[in-house]
Amino acid sequence: VKTQNINAEIITIGDEILIGQVIDTNSAWIAQQLNSIGINVFQITSVSDNNHHIVNALDLSTSRADLIIITGGLGPTKDDITKQTIAGYFNTKLVRDQDVLDHIIQLLEPRGVKINDLNIQQSDIPENCNLLHNACGTAPGMWLEKENKIFVFMPGVPFEMKYIVSEQLIPRLKNQFITPAIVHKTLMLQGIAESMLAQHIEEWEYQLPETIKLAYLPSPGLIRLRLTAKGDSEEILKNSISEQVEKLKPYIKPWYFADDDETIEVTVGKLLKNNNKTLSIAESCTGGKIAHMITSIPGCSDYFKGGIIAYSNEIKKNILSIDPKLIVNFGAVSKEVVEAMAINIRNKFKTDYSISTSGIAGPNGGTLEKPLGTIWIAVASQNKVFSKKYSFGDSNRERNIQRATLSVLSELRKFLLADFQNI
Amino acid sequence: VKTQNINAEIITIGDEILIGQVIDTNSAWIAQQLNSIGINVFQITSVSDNNHHIVNALDLSTSRADLIIITGGLGPTKDDITKQTIAGYFNTKLVRDQDVLDHIIQLLEPRGVKINDLNIQQSDIPENCNLLHNACGTAPGMWLEKENKIFVFMPGVPFEMKYIVSEQLIPRLKNQFITPAIVHKTLMLQGIAESMLAQHIEEWEYQLPETIKLAYLPSPGLIRLRLTAKGDSEEILKNSISEQVEKLKPYIKPWYFADDDETIEVTVGKLLKNNNKTLSIAESCTGGKIAHMITSIPGCSDYFKGGIIAYSNEIKKNILSIDPKLIVNFGAVSKEVVEAMAINIRNKFKTDYSISTSGIAGPNGGTLEKPLGTIWIAVASQNKVFSKKYSFGDSNRERNIQRATLSVLSELRKFLLADFQNI
Repeated sequence: VKTQNINAEIITIGDEILIGQVIDTNSAWIAQQLNSIGINVFQITSVSDNNHHIVNALDLSTSRADLIIITGGLGPTKDDITKQTIAGYFNTKLVRDQDVLDHIIQLLEPRGVKINDLNIQQSDIPENCNLLHNACGTAPGMWLEKENKIFVFMPGVPFEMKYIVSEQLIPRLKNQFITPAIVHKTLMLQGIAESMLAQHIEEWEYQLPETIKLAYLPSPGLIRLRLTAKGDSEEILKNSISEQVEKLKPYIKPWYFADDDETIEVTVGKLLKNNNKTLSIAESCTGGKIAHMITSIPGCSDYFKGGIIAYSNEIKKNILSIDPKLIVNFGAVSKEVVEAMAINIRNKFKTDYSISTSGIAGPNGGTLEKPLGTIWIAVASQNKVFSKKYSFGDSNRERNIQRATLSVLSELRKFLLADFQNI
Repeated sequence: VKTQNINAEIITIGDEILIGQVIDTNSAWIAQQLNSIGINVFQITSVSDNNHHIVNALDLSTSRADLIIITGGLGPTKDDITKQTIAGYFNTKLVRDQDVLDHIIQLLEPRGVKINDLNIQQSDIPENCNLLHNACGTAPGMWLEKENKIFVFMPGVPFEMKYIVSEQLIPRLKNQFITPAIVHKTLMLQGIAESMLAQHIEEWEYQLPETIKLAYLPSPGLIRLRLTAKGDSEEILKNSISEQVEKLKPYIKPWYFADDDETIEVTVGKLLKNNNKTLSIAESCTGGKIAHMITSIPGCSDYFKGGIIAYSNEIKKNILSIDPKLIVNFGAVSKEVVEAMAINIRNKFKTDYSISTSGIAGPNGGTLEKPLGTIWIAVASQNKVFSKKYSFGDSNRERNIQRATLSVLSELRKFLLADFQNI
């Protein structure tokens, strides 16, 4: 059995992307899915809702790709011109499909939507296309072929597109092609700058075999280090990558916390759950971001009891019972206050562990002594309190909140590991 | 003075985008900036870190665009091959730039980073290029010209790219071109489905002049309705759009809350601030998301005091003082409990207003009586409590949390407006 190298191109249609009003998140998700079955995404192209531009993009893509995935331009309202364009491009016409119409009615009636002409027109489908059922919405996916190239059209609404890709497209592609193996391994690191990391692992990087590609993917407070190998045998690739990862680990120990895009909130959640421990949070400058990240994980109620957002000093005093003298003497952004926040929330919420934050997120409010981006964090258990000051030197509110959140969760992880290894 | 129609293409370089590991957020932001000075983005293209592919994308872009903006591939680590490719494409060579080197040293030394070869190589720049200073990072932007087309290369790290675009590129482009006016107006709507909205405004949409384009931009819990006009006179376009917006408003009154991408947390924040009122939040199923959205707005300490995340029933009882009988008799996801949450947080935190949520976000935990996506929300003031049940009929945790957050903020807005109009 010979594997086939399938190149894909993703085309997203929509003026809203080109004027920057919406961010194209669909393409990254589709690329992940194709990659996981060994299909290589060679290019991603975003074009306008313009007949000529769409046809031009379809034409150009066939010189680069065997499989062209198109999202957007399919929906009930009149800014959608894609279907007419498709029919023209494939020299066919639109015909009404009774199954699609039945599905639309079945979907909308229980929601109390009165079926209108716009809804009915959604069941007009290019003749000779293979339909990919859309259980989550009214616009079906459409699989068409022309001169040995496959074109798949889908609506751009993310959860509808995701259903069609997962349930309809991927099984069909797996059936049709025997693709080469691609193995990715990603290591998650927290608390080091890109160029410093590069220097730390230089020796290791130098001896990497040519078949393994390395990439640094930095974002505020986080670096993802990605190893990629491609070949015939998935097992050989996996072994080769595993071997290199084992060699790498001693170099990155202080910053490495998880594999394969596992986020720090998932890592911490697993540690708490596996050890039957509970957590509470007292947030000032992070304003709910930490709790939001923790509660974005299904099943977090096993270990997360809740928290207090003590945004004003009044709430720090009256609700979190922080001694007003501490605030007067040291300021709200201080070792003393952030430690008291962690200790008090743990006692009030009766949890095994607690974390807290207090800082100056910006864009205003910095002083000479405590400039913008000064953040104190603390972690507490029954017998220990750990606290640390960060100086992010940044006036960007969103980035400071993001970095503070990742930093405190990263310190919580180390704190938990030290405790659990002592048991 | 004749205006010029400038078409731009944005090219992002990076395997991490094509394998779906990072989402390209840069392009949308750049597109917004170009749009605001009347430059039209005709296409966005993402290509791999491959010499041949980059050159091919540059070549093809010149057939569509006058201005080509390229991000990515510039950084201190060895996955970056863009600079060599650029030098080749423009038939030039890399030369060390002393100013850039000085800047790199000045930037890294205070951070305690020891300058290494990787850092020094960042000061190697194609000869004859115009540098666009990067105050936020080590890789400068580069402006090159070839056969009457302009190429601008920038690093892909978002905050570095944003600095270069805002401070260097946009002023330079404004100086160089006289571009046509583009006027966008976006209306923000909450609480109606796309096809129902389309039907509601059909009459108005039908009479729209051809010069105004309408687009529906839906996301969970939100629809943005965008009107676009392009022409010579900004004033004429603005008047024409204003006139249409005034005609539209009566049709969309129940759902319309703000203009021009103003988010609901900003709208609500302004209302509270302008009326000197304060807010507290008690969150169960939304787990900190509402507080996080509120506190993402600079200056929110003027009206936001804080909140309690009462994720477990124990915290609802012990910290929020919810009568245990209410939870036993009605369940935590009930009108009775969500109203008590809002009333109690307001009393404890001594604020003018409060909001609360309790629901089943999923992906598990639904029952026949209370299926996944059942969310209760409440809004309280000193003399009034309003509560409402939503049945989102969805098992997706992220979407349910998002919709619940937007819904409660939207109800808070209506509650505040009713109060303030009565004053």
